[in-house]
Parts: sequence; structure tokens; C-alpha cells
Amino acid sequence: MKEVSMLDVPASCTREDANAIRALAMDAVDRAKSGHPGMPMGMADVASVLFRSFLKFDAADPHWPNRDRFVLSAGHGSMLLYALGYLVGYPGLEIEDLKNFRQLGSKTAGHPEYGHAPGVETTTGPLGQGLATAVGMAIGERLANARFGDAIVDHFTYVIAGDGCLMEGISHEAIDLAGHLRLGKLVLLWDDNHISIDGPTSLATSTDQALRFEASGWHVQKIDGHDFSQIAAALRAAKEDPRPSMIACRTVIGYGAPNKQGKESVHGSPLGAEENALARKALGWEHPPFEMPQSILAGWRLAGSRGAPVRAAWIETLAASGKSQEFARFLEADVAEAIAAPLKALRETAAQEKPKLATRKSSENALGVINAATTATIGGSADLTHSVFTLTKGLGVVAPENFSGRYIHYGVREFEMAAAMNGLALYGGFIPYGGTFLVFSDYARGAIRLSALMGLRVIYVLTHDSIGLGEDGPTHQPVEHLASLRAMPNLNVFRPADAIETAECWELALNARSTPSVLSLSRQNLPTLERPVSENLSARGGYVLQEAEGARDVTLIATGSEVSMALEAAKLLAAKGKRAAVVSMPSFELFAAQDAAYRALVLGTAPRVGVEAAVRFGWDRWLGERSAFIGMTGFGASAPADALYAHFGITPEAVAKAALGVIGK
Amino acid sequence: MKEVSMLDVPASCTREDANAIRALAMDAVDRAKSGHPGMPMGMADVASVLFRSFLKFDAADPHWPNRDRFVLSAGHGSMLLYALGYLVGYPGLEIEDLKNFRQLGSKTAGHPEYGHAPGVETTTGPLGQGLATAVGMAIGERLANARFGDAIVDHFTYVIAGDGCLMEGISHEAIDLAGHLRLGKLVLLWDDNHISIDGPTSLATSTDQALRFEASGWHVQKIDGHDFSQIAAALRAAKEDPRPSMIACRTVIGYGAPNKQGKESVHGSPLGAEENALARKALGWEHPPFEMPQSILAGWRLAGSRGAPVRAAWIETLAASGKSQEFARFLEADVAEAIAAPLKALRETAAQEKPKLATRKSSENALGVINAATTATIGGSADLTHSVFTLTKGLGVVAPENFSGRYIHYGVREFEMAAAMNGLALYGGFIPYGGTFLVFSDYARGAIRLSALMGLRVIYVLTHDSIGLGEDGPTHQPVEHLASLRAMPNLNVFRPADAIETAECWELALNARSTPSVLSLSRQNLPTLERPVSENLSARGGYVLQEAEGARDVTLIATGSEVSMALEAAKLLAAKGKRAAVVSMPSFELFAAQDAAYRALVLGTAPRVGVEAAVRFGWDRWLGERSAFIGMTGFGASAPADALYAHFGITPEAVAKAALGVIGK
Repeated sequence: MKEVSMLDVPASCTREDANAIRALAMDAVDRAKSGHPGMPMGMADVASVLFRSFLKFDAADPHWPNRDRFVLSAGHGSMLLYALGYLVGYPGLEIEDLKNFRQLGSKTAGHPEYGHAPGVETTTGPLGQGLATAVGMAIGERLANARFGDAIVDHFTYVIAGDGCLMEGISHEAIDLAGHLRLGKLVLLWDDNHISIDGPTSLATSTDQALRFEASGWHVQKIDGHDFSQIAAALRAAKEDPRPSMIACRTVIGYGAPNKQGKESVHGSPLGAEENALARKALGWEHPPFEMPQSILAGWRLAGSRGAPVRAAWIETLAASGKSQEFARFLEADVAEAIAAPLKALRETAAQEKPKLATRKSSENALGVINAATTATIGGSADLTHSVFTLTKGLGVVAPENFSGRYIHYGVREFEMAAAMNGLALYGGFIPYGGTFLVFSDYARGAIRLSALMGLRVIYVLTHDSIGLGEDGPTHQPVEHLASLRAMPNLNVFRPADAIETAECWELALNARSTPSVLSLSRQNLPTLERPVSENLSARGGYVLQEAEGARDVTLIATGSEVSMALEAAKLLAAKGKRAAVVSMPSFELFAAQDAAYRALVLGTAPRVGVEAAVRFGWDRWLGERSAFIGMTGFGASAPADALYAHFGITPEAVAKAALGVIGK
Repeated sequence: MKEVSMLDVPASCTREDANAIRALAMDAVDRAKSGHPGMPMGMADVASVLFRSFLKFDAADPHWPNRDRFVLSAGHGSMLLYALGYLVGYPGLEIEDLKNFRQLGSKTAGHPEYGHAPGVETTTGPLGQGLATAVGMAIGERLANARFGDAIVDHFTYVIAGDGCLMEGISHEAIDLAGHLRLGKLVLLWDDNHISIDGPTSLATSTDQALRFEASGWHVQKIDGHDFSQIAAALRAAKEDPRPSMIACRTVIGYGAPNKQGKESVHGSPLGAEENALARKALGWEHPPFEMPQSILAGWRLAGSRGAPVRAAWIETLAASGKSQEFARFLEADVAEAIAAPLKALRETAAQEKPKLATRKSSENALGVINAATTATIGGSADLTHSVFTLTKGLGVVAPENFSGRYIHYGVREFEMAAAMNGLALYGGFIPYGGTFLVFSDYARGAIRLSALMGLRVIYVLTHDSIGLGEDGPTHQPVEHLASLRAMPNLNVFRPADAIETAECWELALNARSTPSVLSLSRQNLPTLERPVSENLSARGGYVLQEAEGARDVTLIATGSEVSMALEAAKLLAAKGKRAAVVSMPSFELFAAQDAAYRALVLGTAPRVGVEAAVRFGWDRWLGERSAFIGMTGFGASAPADALYAHFGITPEAVAKAALGVIGK
């Protein structure tokens, strides 16, 4: 690690260098008349030492794969990140961008948005999740290191988190998992400023954070966050210690604003002209807003190019290693070709053998061929491995000091699993998938939303997807979750009906490069349905699985475990001389994306009946006015699955009856 | 606390008494062919000592207000609770009920469901939430104690939690808050069995739980969970210590099943006939399934009536105190009468003065009169007090050693806030409300679901309810949350349009005794709309705010901040000679509950345009086929609110244009 050590020069920054951040932060917030000056002003010293003397990066290439990652978990302090980015000279981040802070179309959004400003490694703002996502990045580093070795992948992940991050429950999941996996290259800088929005943190917390982190196996230090030499010494020690490190940086929020510093009023409101002027005076910052003295900027730009030779050496090392192509392919993580043939073969076998399988089991079969065809996938489960069937043969389990495996026991931590998967997807090279019960997507929802907002290829394997799970009862039976997930933008929700659709939906999920996917899978066995397998029919979202013989009297639209029920109902209707078409609709989203003509063809003009063991909410879009719906109207109950289906009236007979009711309407 | 001490007799139970629980648990699970025998068998000894020698209760009255609360946070071990309930003799819990474990309509659901079997203080199963809810109950005890004194309210709250509960993030929020508030009458028994579903807990966690709890100010003990005298001594010490107590009970999961104990295989599957027989032998339990020897049952029933004299004395004490009526009224917590007049006056004032106010501000005004009219309300916020406006004058802040206030700073802990509110509502006497941003309902969703499932009057004050929040950007802007909450059964989602509707919706929420409510409130100012205030029009869910002059050409349906926009659009349409009616629909749920004739009258037969700064998902039910929708189709952005509304095309002009498009369709 010669290169990395070279970067560890003694802290070479002055208070004035840090004040450059403070000035930009307060000026940008004042100009926007909105934002959070307190945190950037409080953490400017810590961040300056980190960026000028420790962080391995080359501003010329914010995407250099072996850069240290820096995550601002306290995302409301976004101006810290933007100020740093401008000062070190990230390409395309100009002073004009800082002037446009929080304006429509600017790169400098109110909270750091992934894909907007360079240097934003992940979208942050929802508290705790930056830290939780960074844990995923730090896992990604170790996984990639295990594949490519120290010369190609070897870097740190730094996080700045606030009191709010550490109060949120997800911080526990993140800290526990990081400590367990001994992620020694993860360094957390806690902005220990004693202030939250409501007032002093003593209003709501008494936890000894140092002890808490030690309890989870972390290395802990406490420093004065305004003392440059303490900051540098702590960062050095943190890097040397084999455990993940937490540095409690005692800071003054809004440092430099004489009347507001140390108070909650400086957290989330502009300083205003008067206090801004007083702060300038107090800080000895004589320059007009957004004007950066050349001498100060030059020092920062030098820091920004400090990693250039390191990056150049790395490029040479990679070239000399003979692994350039492999590494590029790894980063690309394009699996379309590799999985196409084996998944097609799987579909053909299923069409021939017609197994009666739970779709969670069909998913395991699909994963078997996927995980054999590519090494990009990183599996895991929130302690339901043997129920969600996410661990396939030979995948290897990730453990402390052993990152050669591809399966992570995330523990009973749905939220951290989701956030860590975001981190893995952001890291590059990996396609994370993770399993739990559909109902517990509620626990992970905050991170699923960030998958969708960032456009990450993260795959949620959510099984036991209806009352079909049976005896565990209403706490474990999703009824509103399909609707609540379908309501989320940029999330594909797949509910396959059988082994064939399950293989199809896995293929679609793996190839959706900028959209996360939910696979909603049954606990109970389902028959394999009769249909051609030459084409991935699920790609259309919905399709006519069985056309009526002659003009349709009714169209039955179903998903997942209720598709076979709709086919049964069609038989019952045929016996009464009624012609029913059956539409399988594994994905509302993909169906909505088809052209109107195709949709009209599938939906037809006959009255419609929707069938899904869940609430109707969201279905009316497909049903129209002459329609009925067979599903749930409230929470489930505890009983064997068959008894529940009968009890809640979700049966072929009920579907047929509802169809007869709407025919001729 | 004379009565309580009287109960602390030395542990008077034998292994055989505890084996009664083990036998019932393994037999019921075997009979149901489904369930979790491991935990009840492992914790039978701990639970026996607790119920026989410590827990203050009288089986004859499971609802005695001054009983100790017992929460099984590890809800999958429900047979522990049912076995105990049967053994101590809760009325209406018979051996037949245990035989019907996990069957349709039985009281003995797979996980403990509130309102089913007696002795179930809260629905548990979603891990971590039992503990988090118990923290709310323990707060409730202190709040009630502050009002009525030690003679009337003075009891403990006991929780059994498993490894999963302590891995979940919410456990951190619960532990931190409980430690901070020094809830000394909260005792957590941790089933420290080293096993989770995937295998040994060492697969996923390395946290030193004892140290972790100490870091948050808890009293911690470690014991052998199968040693009766250690259990009793620890419980005694826990009760004496002024801090909340955690007792790490080292146990063997599935204790007694010779081939399966100590393994994950005993966690969630029936033992099966063979292992069941071997376990009987190993435990020395010679009795047939579900047969309880009279001698053993008699001992348990004695334990069940142990508290009878204590309860009798309490009844006398209450009567003698002269507070009987006040206490009964407290428990009743019926505020309908008290709030009716002041809220009506508020509406009348608003109708006269026509303030332009954010509905979050109107909510504060409503809360001002509500909190003055009743003491049942317990407010709070997850560290956004000054943004969600939940703290009204003179409410008083709850602090360690001071529970006379009615406002809780929950900290940056949305999930714990929601779970604690569930606990307060379950405790009785209180109507909890708590505030955060609508978008962060995602973090609390697991507990909101339990509010709905249990039918608790919990009120979620969710502000900043659209892109109208402006610069904070897409991480803070809900677009799918209204839909995802409306999808949930038994949850009323209110989105009031102005000061008048806000007062109305508060009244409806406070009077909905078995349904939780969401109040979705704007950050931005909204005009007061012209309408009669003699009646609570929001009670109908939706109503014609402004009828068209003559036959309708179009019906504009809007909610919250978009209702005034719809009125503007109607004006634009009138200028073009088109007659538009405007419907305000503050609650989909209440509107859906109206009769078809009323709904038809409101919706009319003209084409419709829906307007809401959120996704369309779920709206089609009200729009029909000749319709348009003006709202969001994806995530928001960071910019001033006005710029965002214009950018996303949510304007009166866009509504009018859409209306012209559908007229004549």
C-alpha cells in the first residue's frame, strides 16, 4: 500500500482553508434563502483535513475505481460536499453551480443527489442511510479486493454522520454488521455537535456513543473537531486499526457565526445578511460572496490533484497485471448475454416437465443457473435464507476476513440489507439481490425508495407474498404491499405466475440497469402454465395467456398465484357457455410502458375481472368501469392457506361468479 | 408499593411446572403442523418464574388497569403466551383453544394478535416492535402515574425479546429512548439462545449486547435462563434498580428436544412425532398431548389468582381515593364532546377571517384548542417539532423523572415514535399524535401497519406533503406516499385543503376510536376556501365544494393543496364557457364508505379530472374512463415550490387544459 501511505502527509491546511468551505456554505444558503449552514460550518475543519491530507482521490476523475469513497450521511449539509467539490476542482462543478444551490435543474440539489454533482457517491438526506449505504460500499471494496488483489482494489470508505444518523435505528444495523464483518477500511466521522433540530440532543438521547460503537467491535476515538493535529492523528490511527473506526469529532455547529453557533437555529436556516457579515468578521474572511482568493483556491486545487500520480501508477499497475479487461468487464457487469441461454433452457425444461413449484422455489432454480453463469450477483437474506431460497450451491458465504464468497447473511436487518445492496450497486461491478418476506419490505422501504430514486439495479426477492403463506397470520401476510410498491416511481414489481414467468422476471430484473426490481414470490406451490416459451412474454408486463374461443364475454386479469385460479375460473365459465380470456400481468409497470394498441389488444373491450390476493387499490386502471375484483379488502388471518383462500372468497368459483356478474353490464 | 412487594415470593416453581409450557407448545405446534416450538421451550423456565412469582396480575381480570404488562416481542413464540394464559386461567382460554392453534377463527393465531386471546397486550411478530411498543407502554405507565399517583398506577412492563428483536434497528431506537427517559419499570428478558433462523447468530452479529445496553443507560445482568434461583434473583434486582433493566438469559432453544435443541431446526418447525416422544422422555413428561395433570394445573391456577387480593385492595384504594370517576373517564378517553365546540368555533373563525395558512399551521391551531379541551392527547415529534408544529403552548415536555408533561421529544426516531404511540394507545387513556415529514412515514411504516391492524387511535401528523416543500428535493418530497398509505387497510388518510378542513379532519381522527389516522399537511400556505361550516363536510370523505352553474361539463376532483388550484382552473374554464364542478376529497376512505347514491351525486356523470401533487396510482377508482389526472409521474426535484409546480405541470392552466381535453370524450 505504498501509494496510499504517500498521501498521508501531515495536515497541511489552515483555518483559512477550512473557512473557504464555511464562506461558500453560508453564502450559498443565504443566496438560496434555504438550506443548512450549520453542519458544513461545523465540520469544515474535519473535512478539510480529510480531503487535503487523507482522502485518496484525483479530482480529474471522480469515477476512478480505486478512489476512497466519501459519503455525507448527514446529507442536509450538502454544501460541505459541493464546496469541497468546487475547491478541489471536480470537473463540471463551477462557482456558478454553487450560486445555483437548490435551484431548478442545478447540479447542487438541496440534498446530495447521485448523478447530479460529481463527488456525490450516493444520494443522502434520509438520515442514517448514508452510513448504512457506506457499509455496503465497504463490503463491495472487500469483495472486489478478494477478486483483484491489493494492487487493484484497496481503499477506504469515509462517512460523515450526524446525531440524527446515529439516533435512527438503521445505524444500529449498520454498525452491528460492519463490526461483525470487521470492515477495517470503514471510517466514520461523527459530527458530535450536541444539537439536533428540536434543540440540544440531551432532549432525546443519553447514549454513550463511544461505548455503543465499542460494543459492536469498533475502534473509537474522541477528538476536538476543530483541532487540525487531533483530526490528522485520529485519521491516521483509524486507518491503522484493523477494526472499523469511529471518530467522535466534538464540533460547534455553525462554527464562526457568532450569535448562532452552537444553537439549533443555525442547523437548517440561512444565517441572513447580518449574521453572515458578523461571521465573516469573526472568521477573518474578508472576501465577497462566492469569491475565492487565488492563493486559497490554488492550495485546494493542489490537494485535488494530489492523487493524480497515484491514479497514474494504478493505471500502470492494472495494465501490467493483465487484468485490465477482466476488471473492465467486472465494472460493466453486463450479464444479458451470459444469462440468456441458461434461463431460456430453464424455461424450456419447465415447459416440458411442468413442475408444480412455489415461485420462491422456481426463483431458487433460476438463481442456480444465474449464479453459475455470472459472478456479478451477490446474494443475501435478512435471516430467512431457508425460506426465501436465495443461497444457491457453491456461492460461498461472506465472513469476517473472508470475502471470497458471494452470499451475505445480513442478519435480521431488512433495512440495512437494502441499504447495503444500494452501496454494492453504487460501488460498481455487482448486482446485489436480497431476500425477505414481502410484508417486511415495510422495514426496508426507506432504502427501496433510494434504489428507485438513484436508479440502481438492486433486486428484492420478496417471498410469502400473500395470505398463501398461511398460519403465520396477518402480521406476516402482505395485502397492501404490492400496491404500495407499485405506487413507487422507477421500481419494477414482478409477480410471476409459475416457473416460466419466474425465470423471465429474473432475466428482466437482471437486465434493468437503472431500475430496481421486486420479485413477489409465493410460498405455496403453483402449477406450470401452458404457453409458448420462445419469447420472454413477461417483458410486455401483461399478455393474453389464454384467448377466449370466439369473441370475449369477459377478460380475467390475474397475477402470480392467482393466474392458475383465473384459468380454473375460465373453465367454469366455459361450462356455462361464457367465453373468458385470461391475461397474466406479472408487471403493471412494464405493461403500462407498452403502446396503447398493444394494451388495448390485451385488455379487450369485454368487461373485466381482476384477481389478486391483495387489495384492489391501483387495479382500477386496468379494470375500467364494467368490472369486478376478487381479492382482499382487509388484513389476513391465521390459518392454513387453503382455508384462508376459501374464507376470503378468493376461489375459481368466486371469480367465475364475479365474471357472470359483470358480463352484459 | 406494599402490594407489589407482597408478590415477590421466592420462586416457587419446579422444572415440571415449566415443562407444562414446553409440552403444550410442542403439542400445539405438532398438531397445527406449523409454528415455532423452540422459543417457548427455551424460555419456559424464565417465563414460569416471571408469571408465578413476579408478574402482578389477576387472571380473573386480564384488563385490570394496574396490572404489570407482559409483551412477547419474539411473537413467533406465541405458544409461550397461550400456554401461560391457559395455565394461569385467563377466562375464555381453554385447552380447546390451544388445540386450535393457528386454525381459522381460533383465538390462538400464529402470532399473538391483540384482541384475540386474553393476555395479548399487543400484536407482535414483526421483530423488534414488541420491545418498541413496550417502551410506549412504560411511558404510559409513568404518565398515568404522574396523574394518579403510586396508589393507583404503579406497575412494571416486562418484555421477552429474541436475538432478532435486538438485531432490528428499531431496538436501538427503543433502547436509546428508554434509557434516556430512565424507564426503570421496564424489564427486558433477552432470550440469549445464540440461534437465529439462518443458523448460529455468529453468522451475522458480534455485538456485545450487555455493553450495548449499558451504553444506553440500562442495568444489565447475565444469567443462566434455566436456573430458577438465578432468574428470580435477577428479576428482583431488575425491579430494584432505578434504570431500565436487561437480563440476558442464556438459554437452549428447544430445551428438552434431545436431537434438535440448540439448533436452528427447532426454531420454526414442528418437532414431529418422533422427536416429540423423545422430548417427553427427556423432560420426564409422561402425560398425553394436551392433558395437564391436576396437581400441576392447580399450582398454575394458584399463581393466576395470586394477584386477586392485590387487585381487590387496589379497587378499594381507588374507591377511597375519590378518583374513581376521574380514572374511569381517563381510561375512556372519549373526547368527542370536549372538542366539538372549540373546533366548531375554530372553523367559524377561519370561515370569517379566511387566513392564508399552511395546513401544518392550521393543524397547530387545531391542536391548540384540542390540547386545551382535553388532557388525553399526548403529542410528540421525531425531532421536527418546529416544522410540524405539534407542540402547543403549555403542553409541558416529558423528561426523565418528569412525566407531568404531555409532549415527547422522540428524537430522530420515526419508527420508535410510531411504535411508542401504539404502546400509549394500547395502554389506555391516551390519544397519541406524533409528527414527522410525510416522506419519512416510510421509516415508520412497520408500526403504522400495526396501528391499523390493531385498530388503534393513533394520529400521524405528516407534513411537507408534496413537492410543495420545495428545495429539500426528492428525498424529502413524497410522491407515492399518499397512495401507499391509502392502500393500507383500516387507515384513514386525510389531506385537508385549508384551515377549515384541517379542523374537521382533526375532529374525525380524534373520534375514530378503532382506526389510526394520517393527517397529510402542506408546508406552503393555502387560502381558506368558501363553504358552509355548520357541518363537518370532511366526514363524508369527499363533497362538492363548488357546483357548476348548470349541467356539469366536467368534475374536478382534488385534495389538499391542489383544491384551490382546481377552483382556479374552474374559473379559467368558466371563462371559456365550460361548467366545472369542484370536488374536495380529503379522505378516500371515508368517501368510499358513503353510500353509492351519495358518491354518484358527488362524482357526477361528466368526465373527470383528478388533481393531486402525487402519483395517479389509486385515483382511477374515482376518475372512470373519460378522465385525466394532473399530478406527478416520477420523483420530485430540488427547487423553490412554485418553480416545481410549474416544472411538473401542476397548475390551474394545466388542469383547465386537461379538462378541455376530456370534455366531450
